[in-house]
Parts: sequence; C-alpha cells; structure tokens
Amino acid sequence: MPDFAEPLARLITEFKRLPGIGQKSAQRLAFHVLRAQREDAEHLAQALLDVKDKLGLCRVCNNISDTDLCLYCRDNQRDEKLVCVVEEPHNIIGIETTRQYEGRYHVLHGSLSPLRGIGPESLRIKGLVERIGEGRIQEVILATNPTVEGEATAVYLARLLKPLGVKVTRIAMGIPVGSDLEFADEVTISKAMEGRREM
Amino acid sequence: MPDFAEPLARLITEFKRLPGIGQKSAQRLAFHVLRAQREDAEHLAQALLDVKDKLGLCRVCNNISDTDLCLYCRDNQRDEKLVCVVEEPHNIIGIETTRQYEGRYHVLHGSLSPLRGIGPESLRIKGLVERIGEGRIQEVILATNPTVEGEATAVYLARLLKPLGVKVTRIAMGIPVGSDLEFADEVTISKAMEGRREM
Repeated sequence: MPDFAEPLARLITEFKRLPGIGQKSAQRLAFHVLRAQREDAEHLAQALLDVKDKLGLCRVCNNISDTDLCLYCRDNQRDEKLVCVVEEPHNIIGIETTRQYEGRYHVLHGSLSPLRGIGPESLRIKGLVERIGEGRIQEVILATNPTVEGEATAVYLARLLKPLGVKVTRIAMGIPVGSDLEFADEVTISKAMEGRREM
Repeated sequence: MPDFAEPLARLITEFKRLPGIGQKSAQRLAFHVLRAQREDAEHLAQALLDVKDKLGLCRVCNNISDTDLCLYCRDNQRDEKLVCVVEEPHNIIGIETTRQYEGRYHVLHGSLSPLRGIGPESLRIKGLVERIGEGRIQEVILATNPTVEGEATAVYLARLLKPLGVKVTRIAMGIPVGSDLEFADEVTISKAMEGRREM
C-alpha cells in the first residue's frame, strides 16, 4: 500500500468500509473529494449524519421514515386491504419501481435464520398480526427473498397468518424476463415449471 | 423514482454526485449507512471534512500533504537526483505500488490543453525549473498520461528542461503486460513497435 497523507488515508479507509467499495474505488472517491468544493464534502457529511439522526421506523409498517407514519401508510390512495411483506426497507424500492403495486407494506427487518440465531421473535411479526387483527387486511403477499431464509420465513408466516382468516400469497419464482433458459439454474427452472400458467 | 424519506433521498443524491456511483449503488450505500452504527457515519463524515481542512500541497513537489513537505520529499532514503513528473497527485499512487521507483516526484496538477484554455502558466512548472536550477537533479522522467494532452505536456517540458542540462526521459508506451495484441489499438501497437528493444 502506498503512503497517503493521514487525512486522505483515513478517508480511503472509511470509504472502503462501505459495501462494494474496494481499495481502488476508495482512492478514486477520496481524490474526488479532495478536488471537490468544501461545500460538497459538507453536504455529504451532513447527509450522512442526518440519515442517522432524523430517520426512524414507521409506527405501522416498520419502513424507514422521518415521520411517525411512512409515505405509504400515510397515503390514503393506497389499498389498505393488501399488505406486501418484505425483509428489508430497501426491498420496497424494487417493488415501487414497478409502479404496479398499490397496497401497503410490512417490513420484517430480517428473515428467519436458525443458524445465525434469528428466530421469529427477532423479526417484526407481532405488528403484522396486530394489523391483521384490526380486520381490514384481506390479502398478505409474502415477498421475502427466494433464498433458504426468505423461503423459511414465508412458510412460517403462511402457517401463522392463514388461521387469522386472511388470504396469504407468495410472489412467483421463475425465469427472469429478458433472460435465457440457458442461464437459469435448475432450481429456478423447476420453480418456473411448477408455477406454469395456462395461456 | 420511488419515494424516500427526505434525509435518505438527500444522502442518495449526495452519493450519486461521487464518480462511478449511480442510482442503484447510491441506494445501496445509503441503506448501508442507515443500518450501520451512528459512529461509523460520524467517522466518514469527519474524514470527509478533514480531507478538505487538513490537507495542502507539498512546498517542493505539489503532492497532497498534511505537512509542509510531503512523505516523499521528507524521505532522505529517496534519490534526489531523480524526479518523476506526473499530472495529478493520484498518479503517484500507481507508480508507488510498483515499489520500483525510489526517486522524488513533481506534480503538475493538470496537463496542457489549449482547447480548454490550459496553458503552461496554469501548470506548476515554475517550481520544477527552480528545483532543477538547484543543481541536484540529474534526470527528469516524464510520466504524464499517454493522451494527447499528456503527450503535448511531455513534449513541451522536454523542450523546456533539456537546455537546463538535465537528462529528460519519457515512460515507455506499449502493450500492457498480461494483455493480448488482439486487444491493443493500432496506436499502442505502433508505439510498442517503435519502442522495441533488443533481447
């Protein structure tokens, strides 16, 4: 590692702690900051702190929010009969970019993982059961990830929620649009076959 | 674009201003900061400001430094008869990672570019001439980039410095090691042919 002046070395180290940023990217970012206006560095520094200080979780759905109720829970245009359950707040972004979904959300903040000691009590499931208890929710869409943990979470939630009298559905797994069967793994293909629909 | 809580949206915007960071990366970084400890965000924020506040240029070679003389100008182990001229401070990093070069540096902070109105007076050339005037430098290695601007800068400096009685050399251009002739452009290949050496 070449020698950098201490403040520069420290900024490179801090950038490297971010996900997906290696030594070279961290150096490029640090040198960019070095050349940029002090104002730009200030704005980024302030934004970093504000995210830690001004954001909390929505009282209803546990989404990230700077207000008591998040954007989606506040929005009366959204269908309160429909709740989409996701693992993390950023999963909402993926669903929102489709512009297709008009229901509410519920964020678990994790998935079941017995190996890592994450049981149902570590997830925000209680609030979901309470919401269903209020009687307005008709369908719960389980949009946890198609991983072992996400799948286990979905199975657990389905068993827990069905007796409460709501419809519980799981998002479809299959070949991604625009992809090629050639590049799909066998588990994905078998899920795609299982989930086939009449045309 | 999906809706984010204001502080999160602002952090994403600030991350996007960094080079090589698009919308998706900025979102991933922002959500990472959201999940991280406040302390981590503080360290990054402070490092950003310190780089702007605590760093200046080395009095001798114009490299980035938090002291009057940079690491390389302070190091008496390094050969003061040899000076390597680079365009930007980060170019030093590339040369240092080779662990081959043991001389000093001189940073121009740019390259000649008449089209963008950057003439010799915009570059830090005067200090280099003064350093050579002190009489200890025997060879100046021109390590400006192999671009039109870098090449023009090298040609200009060679003409300016040779009459001062120093040896002026230019780094070799050719096929990158580990690459394939197939992927090299014709200019690089012709430079490689020109610069051929007897084995």
